[in-house]
Amino acid sequence: MKIYETATAPNPRRVRMFLAEKGLLDQVEFVQIDIAKGENLTPEFVAMNPMKKVPVAVLDDGTALAETMAICRYVEESHPNTPALLGDSAKEKALIEQWLRWIDFYLMTPVGMCFQHTSGYFKDRMNCFPDYGQDCYGAAEKFFAFLNEQLADKPYLLGDKFTAADINAFCTVSFARVVKLRIDDDQPHLQAWFDRINERPSAKV
Amino acid sequence: MKIYETATAPNPRRVRMFLAEKGLLDQVEFVQIDIAKGENLTPEFVAMNPMKKVPVAVLDDGTALAETMAICRYVEESHPNTPALLGDSAKEKALIEQWLRWIDFYLMTPVGMCFQHTSGYFKDRMNCFPDYGQDCYGAAEKFFAFLNEQLADKPYLLGDKFTAADINAFCTVSFARVVKLRIDDDQPHLQAWFDRINERPSAKV
Repeated sequence: MKIYETATAPNPRRVRMFLAEKGLLDQVEFVQIDIAKGENLTPEFVAMNPMKKVPVAVLDDGTALAETMAICRYVEESHPNTPALLGDSAKEKALIEQWLRWIDFYLMTPVGMCFQHTSGYFKDRMNCFPDYGQDCYGAAEKFFAFLNEQLADKPYLLGDKFTAADINAFCTVSFARVVKLRIDDDQPHLQAWFDRINERPSAKV
Repeated sequence: MKIYETATAPNPRRVRMFLAEKGLLDQVEFVQIDIAKGENLTPEFVAMNPMKKVPVAVLDDGTALAETMAICRYVEESHPNTPALLGDSAKEKALIEQWLRWIDFYLMTPVGMCFQHTSGYFKDRMNCFPDYGQDCYGAAEKFFAFLNEQLADKPYLLGDKFTAADINAFCTVSFARVVKLRIDDDQPHLQAWFDRINERPSAKV
């Protein structure tokens, strides 16, 4: 499998961390795409992913596969003998999916929208609405508080087990620094969880 | 299983259609929640889903499960002898996941944001940015054109097989009428696909 990515972007980091936790990182060839320069807007890239986003995986049979969680799902389903990060039982799989959706809709999207609409980083290719971006900051801030509450009595989001929900939340909390949103001094549970995950070797890839 | 939903809202429809395609609709008890009146903002509801959204499933053991696709995943994983709507092989599961994400991020989110920011329907509980909402209309319109292209040479989004990707796209294209976005006369493939799905008994539930 080959993965087209931008090493500094948050979504590719989620995939690398997922692969590292499964012990599969060295089986993948990574190709860097400079999104600031628009290398994701070329006809060749758009043919792989019409949505023009990184990461994109190209499977050994040549199939292009876009979307972070689609790539993680492929890895999970095709490597059943590595630790399950998307759950074992029906109920666990569903609760992880709930968390993945919550993190995407109520954390990653607000942080991303805040960044895109207030920084003008992609102003050559989108319309920016700074007031909306600022409103998104407030939404992301609320989710930090929610995470802190949820982590008051358990080491990981799903309980005792480290899962893809922790990977996605960790990468997004970390990425939120681009909009100057950081874990607050009065969020000790969130900070302890962050530090715990930050010590895993997978957090360094 | 009990499902708290709002029958007229698009996400609960996705779950009902999913259940109907699997022949499980009559095994679920539905409870109506009036979101216009704020019945999803009560302490009882927030205890089930801190994100205050419908639908929410309550499993037989009492576990509350939010998020449309988390509920669908639970149903899929706990009923393996019904038609698979989330895929069979690793590759098929991943390609369906890619489509589900594309539909959520590039169709459902823009349509929902256009509706919420331009109609003021939830103005008692959110800040509205009408210019941003109007920009979202343009994004949804582009995705309609993309769907039309994609459906030029196949009956369903994944090819010959009807999947959850068709359910989610169908419910969202249908819902887009609330922002006056409709299939254009020059989108015959999208129209034919819509009519094909609209004839399924599951489209009526």
